[in-house]
Amino acid sequence: MDIHQILRVVNVIVFCVCFVNGYITYIAIRLPLQGEMSAPGSPWPHPKELNSTTQTLSLDMADFEIGSNVIGCDVIEKGIARHKAMLGFGHKDDTLHAVEDLQIHVENTSCQAYPYLGMDESYTLEADQHATLRANSIWGVLRGLETFSQLVYTTATGQARINKTSIVDEPRFAHRGIMLDTARHFIPLPVLLKNLDAMSYNKFNVFHWHIVDDQSFPYQSIRFPGLSHKGAYSPVHVYSQTDIKTVVEYARLRGIRVIVEFDTPGHTQSWGKFDRDLLTPCWHNGHKGEAEYNRHGEYELMNPMLNSTFTFLEELFSEVTSVFPDDYVHLGMDEAYHYCWASNPDVRAFLTNVLGLNASDFSGLEQYYIRRVLDIVSKTHKKTIIWEDPIEKGLKADKDVLVEVWRNEQNWTNNMEEVIQRGYSAILSSCWYLNYISYGQDWRQYYSCDPHHFNGLARPP
Amino acid sequence: MDIHQILRVVNVIVFCVCFVNGYITYIAIRLPLQGEMSAPGSPWPHPKELNSTTQTLSLDMADFEIGSNVIGCDVIEKGIARHKAMLGFGHKDDTLHAVEDLQIHVENTSCQAYPYLGMDESYTLEADQHATLRANSIWGVLRGLETFSQLVYTTATGQARINKTSIVDEPRFAHRGIMLDTARHFIPLPVLLKNLDAMSYNKFNVFHWHIVDDQSFPYQSIRFPGLSHKGAYSPVHVYSQTDIKTVVEYARLRGIRVIVEFDTPGHTQSWGKFDRDLLTPCWHNGHKGEAEYNRHGEYELMNPMLNSTFTFLEELFSEVTSVFPDDYVHLGMDEAYHYCWASNPDVRAFLTNVLGLNASDFSGLEQYYIRRVLDIVSKTHKKTIIWEDPIEKGLKADKDVLVEVWRNEQNWTNNMEEVIQRGYSAILSSCWYLNYISYGQDWRQYYSCDPHHFNGLARPP
Repeated sequence: MDIHQILRVVNVIVFCVCFVNGYITYIAIRLPLQGEMSAPGSPWPHPKELNSTTQTLSLDMADFEIGSNVIGCDVIEKGIARHKAMLGFGHKDDTLHAVEDLQIHVENTSCQAYPYLGMDESYTLEADQHATLRANSIWGVLRGLETFSQLVYTTATGQARINKTSIVDEPRFAHRGIMLDTARHFIPLPVLLKNLDAMSYNKFNVFHWHIVDDQSFPYQSIRFPGLSHKGAYSPVHVYSQTDIKTVVEYARLRGIRVIVEFDTPGHTQSWGKFDRDLLTPCWHNGHKGEAEYNRHGEYELMNPMLNSTFTFLEELFSEVTSVFPDDYVHLGMDEAYHYCWASNPDVRAFLTNVLGLNASDFSGLEQYYIRRVLDIVSKTHKKTIIWEDPIEKGLKADKDVLVEVWRNEQNWTNNMEEVIQRGYSAILSSCWYLNYISYGQDWRQYYSCDPHHFNGLARPP
Repeated sequence: MDIHQILRVVNVIVFCVCFVNGYITYIAIRLPLQGEMSAPGSPWPHPKELNSTTQTLSLDMADFEIGSNVIGCDVIEKGIARHKAMLGFGHKDDTLHAVEDLQIHVENTSCQAYPYLGMDESYTLEADQHATLRANSIWGVLRGLETFSQLVYTTATGQARINKTSIVDEPRFAHRGIMLDTARHFIPLPVLLKNLDAMSYNKFNVFHWHIVDDQSFPYQSIRFPGLSHKGAYSPVHVYSQTDIKTVVEYARLRGIRVIVEFDTPGHTQSWGKFDRDLLTPCWHNGHKGEAEYNRHGEYELMNPMLNSTFTFLEELFSEVTSVFPDDYVHLGMDEAYHYCWASNPDVRAFLTNVLGLNASDFSGLEQYYIRRVLDIVSKTHKKTIIWEDPIEKGLKADKDVLVEVWRNEQNWTNNMEEVIQRGYSAILSSCWYLNYISYGQDWRQYYSCDPHHFNGLARPP
């Protein structure tokens, strides 16, 4: 069991960047820590193949060069500068051979503008007197630089060391994401950036930004500034377009995609503060816009009866998909409970008169909503991700829609099997909800979840 | 039920101090918040007597004066300046009568140097065109200023308002404390100060600083710098003497006492990193200094056999009691498990040969240790607080030792009764452990604990 260096913590202290390795201490002296400390310079996560030796080399930071065959590519140049700084300020030990330089050889020297699903992140690393990092793409270089910086350690007397090591590495999964919810709790920009640092140290490659929800709308829209003006917790609890550019660029330089989520038709209470007509009026006791608490609020779910709803979404997604350069946008679609729609006589009339469906076919209405939103977003040439809920209800989406499985923490394998059986590709989240609270070593359960441990991995023909 | 303004949060943004009132939002739109919002300008905690009216007065911050009959007292002057800034930047509403000034009248104009147990914190406040704050001591003035600043609110159009209000207030309990543990988790200085701010807004008057423990020793001693040099998590995870002066002064100006705790004879693992002889060697399998995990570590509990232990404690407490000006010092004395002492043949010999006790009378040894430490500290003319453990074991301390009850969260009344029956005064902590984790409204259980709900309040004669 590895109890070393689970997360690298960065402290920024005026002009000086100090890297502190996190460590774990005992809780009670009668209950010592289990397991063994990792050897110094152990990379994390464990590479696919790692051949470490006991042959120790020195490193002279004053005289250490990192060279590359890629010219004029910011991802590589800034990656080298960032990781060179991470190596610290260790000095040379003259009694040992020194690693004199690290040479980077990239097969495809194209300076790709933005990371993407399926990008090649593989690399090989030889840590020797002339260290070599080989990768097929610039993204593999970033992963290899991260590993190299983790191999270097500093002795108590301040000498930089690295063990002769040979590594072959590639990720097991193409999509390795962290979702942050900035709507229930606003997260300041510097904390988002710190999270991106932590992700890059752990070779994550997707920041899934659940940016708005019922509780607040911190996204500052260019086209609809009223959305955050009315829907954010306060005028300072917003992400300006500049903030978003900062996040996207910071992530890009670390090979991290930013996938933004605008969750509809549920989870949109804060949208209604900008324009109440976006939401369906719920009915109670014969009154429009009245809550029946525990079943529905006063206004809930986007209003699928009005064309203005879809015109608005078209304009919003037109903006959002140009602000966020990733190939994918996340459309939510989870937890669309039908009580509000069912309470509204206009909705029942709309179902029969306009859609030609049964007056209580609210799943049919949800399907109609999903279809129109997918059509809107497809015009932006973006691909889409949705939460599993509509698929579990038997609703249909195009087969290239990625489906994110979040339900059924204990029995997620059923959900994965169903989504795959229906012909979709899936992203699994169920096992890694970090907002569950428990005492002690909760990482064990997160760690023991293997996304391949379910039946039916092979898709049906 | 009051769902408004439980905690005032302070944001400091370069040269600009912004005061943000915390508020609570719903979790699910189908589960609305229960209860009613407090009226704007409702003070917290609720004063003993509050007569609020609907007569609204205006306030013109550009022209508002706070005067006092106390001259040249920093507690008053800085208190006035602090609370004046808290009133915000609201402007006058000419359609209303204005509160033109607040006059402070203190009975005892003595500028007392430091807050103390039993200080007079009572005050009366009349918020009218000429507002009046009357108090017996400068400490009551601070509480009254806090209440006055909470009465003022700002309208959506930026006008400062206050309702005509009459208040008679005094605390129900003389000791209203928050304990922070800076040993298991180091807490940076700015966070300690922010906590003192929050305490002052809520009229708490004791910061109980559990400064060191098994895991780390962040107190930077003048006499024994090696304690933190060896025992702190790192050289930056320490409180310098300057830091401590900053905390003590910041607290003093807010009428908050700082009671420091140096917990012995258990909870001292980090002390042993400085000098292993301070701790008793535990024995296992006939070997000295060997752990028998789950029963005892390698070295545990202060070593009561060596005179050097007590000489060291005398020097340490001589320093500590001069660094912290409060009348009280907390000596811990909790969780002194006897397994380590019992494992050591030298301890058994010491019990019979030196103390003349039975060789297995480890409670007798604990009593001997307590007696010597209390004697050492009494020479410094400080009064002492200890945790309840020794008293529950039937050990004896002087009757002026305050006993802090922390055990038996569900059944603390038994513990309170026992401590009171034995003739001690008690501080209750059991019901307010903030480190328990739970979802949702955990404040309910903290709030429903009344320290007087036990039998035997009247002491035996």
